[in-house]
Amino acid sequence: MLSFIAAIAIAAQPQSVEETIANIRKKGLAELGAYAMLKDLTTNVGARVSGSAGAAKSVIWVKDNLRKMGATNVSEVACMVPHWVRGTGERATMDGLTKLSVCALGGSIGTPHAGIEAEVIEVKSLKEAEELGERGKGKIVFFNRPFNTNTGASGSGYGGAVDQRVGGATAAAKSGAVAVLVRSMTLATDDAPHTGMMVYGEGRKIPAAALGIQSANKLTAALKRGKTKVRLILNCKILPKVPSANVLGEIKGTEFPNEVIVMGGHLDSWDLGRGAHDDGAGVVHAMEALRLIKSLGLKPKRTIRVVAWMDEEQGGSGAKAYFEYASKAAETHFAAMESDMGGFMPRTFGVTESKIEKVRAWEPMLRDFGIDRFVPGGADADNGPLGALGTILFSLNPDGQRYFDVHHSRNDVIENVHPRELEFGAIAMSSLAWLLSEQGDILKN
Amino acid sequence: MLSFIAAIAIAAQPQSVEETIANIRKKGLAELGAYAMLKDLTTNVGARVSGSAGAAKSVIWVKDNLRKMGATNVSEVACMVPHWVRGTGERATMDGLTKLSVCALGGSIGTPHAGIEAEVIEVKSLKEAEELGERGKGKIVFFNRPFNTNTGASGSGYGGAVDQRVGGATAAAKSGAVAVLVRSMTLATDDAPHTGMMVYGEGRKIPAAALGIQSANKLTAALKRGKTKVRLILNCKILPKVPSANVLGEIKGTEFPNEVIVMGGHLDSWDLGRGAHDDGAGVVHAMEALRLIKSLGLKPKRTIRVVAWMDEEQGGSGAKAYFEYASKAAETHFAAMESDMGGFMPRTFGVTESKIEKVRAWEPMLRDFGIDRFVPGGADADNGPLGALGTILFSLNPDGQRYFDVHHSRNDVIENVHPRELEFGAIAMSSLAWLLSEQGDILKN
Repeated sequence: MLSFIAAIAIAAQPQSVEETIANIRKKGLAELGAYAMLKDLTTNVGARVSGSAGAAKSVIWVKDNLRKMGATNVSEVACMVPHWVRGTGERATMDGLTKLSVCALGGSIGTPHAGIEAEVIEVKSLKEAEELGERGKGKIVFFNRPFNTNTGASGSGYGGAVDQRVGGATAAAKSGAVAVLVRSMTLATDDAPHTGMMVYGEGRKIPAAALGIQSANKLTAALKRGKTKVRLILNCKILPKVPSANVLGEIKGTEFPNEVIVMGGHLDSWDLGRGAHDDGAGVVHAMEALRLIKSLGLKPKRTIRVVAWMDEEQGGSGAKAYFEYASKAAETHFAAMESDMGGFMPRTFGVTESKIEKVRAWEPMLRDFGIDRFVPGGADADNGPLGALGTILFSLNPDGQRYFDVHHSRNDVIENVHPRELEFGAIAMSSLAWLLSEQGDILKN
Repeated sequence: MLSFIAAIAIAAQPQSVEETIANIRKKGLAELGAYAMLKDLTTNVGARVSGSAGAAKSVIWVKDNLRKMGATNVSEVACMVPHWVRGTGERATMDGLTKLSVCALGGSIGTPHAGIEAEVIEVKSLKEAEELGERGKGKIVFFNRPFNTNTGASGSGYGGAVDQRVGGATAAAKSGAVAVLVRSMTLATDDAPHTGMMVYGEGRKIPAAALGIQSANKLTAALKRGKTKVRLILNCKILPKVPSANVLGEIKGTEFPNEVIVMGGHLDSWDLGRGAHDDGAGVVHAMEALRLIKSLGLKPKRTIRVVAWMDEEQGGSGAKAYFEYASKAAETHFAAMESDMGGFMPRTFGVTESKIEKVRAWEPMLRDFGIDRFVPGGADADNGPLGALGTILFSLNPDGQRYFDVHHSRNDVIENVHPRELEFGAIAMSSLAWLLSEQGDILKN
């Protein structure tokens, strides 16, 4: 009888969701757990390129840390990932004199050992490169269309410029080019080159590299003065695919254990920095969100699960594997929340548009840590496929002004992450997961 | 006749306010004029402590730049300002061995030439210091209550801790203390001490200094081990007041030239850094806001005026002088907008509460550069007095997470300002000034 009375006593003091969310916030800001985890990940594991030793080590790191915080069902969802290796000694020289700051784009083939030396021709678009015809033959084609800078608050212009990085090599090869150089995808004014995925289409494969912004400016200035040659040496290689994995861990729901709320980011990164903002931040956002709920002794009605996706950067094999896993599972994926825009101060949550009016009721509870409102969206690279299962999608949208300053470059390191800004993202995810768990019924139908 | 027709042709193509605001945004983001001005101010003028040569130079700098951008009525509003001088060689040593990172608080008297050496006693509040009684006699009282870290989105805890800095010396003197040390007003974890104003009340004056956070942590750890002495040497001095000035410049209104919209920040700063965020950012926000309107050839209906206030940091003599000037002027101060929370990404505008429902109609036009909404507020240190004239008050509220990391410390330098984040603040002020000029009638009554 005594234990029965004790159980009633506990059940008789339920916290309101407002109180719970306030407790999540206070604990997060007092402990700054996301930063501690991200510092450990970026320092002791380091960069996590798909297929690399770092990526393999990071899978173990996530599992160890999820177990440490008391998560259950800590496990892997296997996938096969690309294995592209940068090699060492990549460089570019203009007219035999001026060093240019350069890096191979992910997925590119290398150059011959002695490099490729050729005259450079500058273009501003894929179309222009395709239409060079004879003028492109034997040349290095230089894609130099900058970001549109006028695109508002979290604006970056990335979406309007990145086709040059992804498709530049294929377009230039059609005109007989021997290599491509691409202006880095950034608004920063330093000379750090920014890597990122490129993709070969049909036809001949030619090497592709990014130039730092100052180097791109030097090259375009030289071209205005007259004919300019560049020698480009890239030692990257495409190796056979290797096995890898997504990692998951969860708190089982008490009332609806088969209704799963996913929170996640991607575990792989690029190699030049340490993948601190992209996307170590998203991974620790989700892990810290779970840790806060767990360590406050909260018992969610629905299952709250962390997923650290593998291989977002080089093709999304992890997201595809997780989607197949989810499609076959006996459980339902009720909601899936992704963080892949860095560890900056939260501003909004994107949400599947048909649910936006329903979640508006939660906005006042989220404002205290930076979420002004819900906006239409929610589908990102890794949670996106789950939309086909009827899963409600959410994306954490932090302030975007600093993101492309560091994105895919050597500057994507812990020193450029602010401990409190990072924690607010974790608090936002944790709070939204709790709302979905406890009040998710309002989103049904 | 031709010129008459031309005039009609121009008048027949009025831009909508939406178009004008979009043009302000595009021009601002393309030119980043606020950053260029702030770099010049912080590099070529430097720190601008009230009464210093730097402050005098900055008055000329603002006038020159306002004239250069075509402002009219470029003039000064005189005020008498405090003249506190830090001197050189300030330092603190713990138990004769460990150097502590220290700086005099603004307004403090110095120590004797050889310094003050005394045992330290730690307290957490003014009350505790006042109640030390005999135990405080001959001691250095160490105020070590940290910020409350749990205070939400733009939270800082500054307001809950700063009484120790302002009133610590007066409280400790009541118990016979010989000096005070205060934990720096920051959430940063480095060891840069943060200065700021302190005020003597009735009674004996004793020297007051701030400790860097790591030094404060060392001192509290030493006190836990046992009795600890500190030798403190401060070479600061209070000199007689000197004449200085606010600066103003404007675009005269075409329809209601006697209805003035003020935009401003404060020109004085502390001396350890360069006053980049505090409040060079606010000054260039307002100057760039005017420049954008002027250089787009816009003709506002109401007069739009920049005011660079002097001496916000050490008593507000500039704000008082400007208020008296405004009280006697033939013109009406319709609205006054202040920026004094740094050059970070805008989040909201504070506004006089009685007007908030009316300005909500403007929110959709402001979201594209980070202003999510209007919030009750608007009165800040320099525009606040104008409220007594019925002026509608606005304050620019940028994201606050990084502000107290640098505030009043050697880290308040241009390197910690982001060019686009800074510009968005100027665009926000410029756009709001334009709305007030063209649609301000909705705020009457």
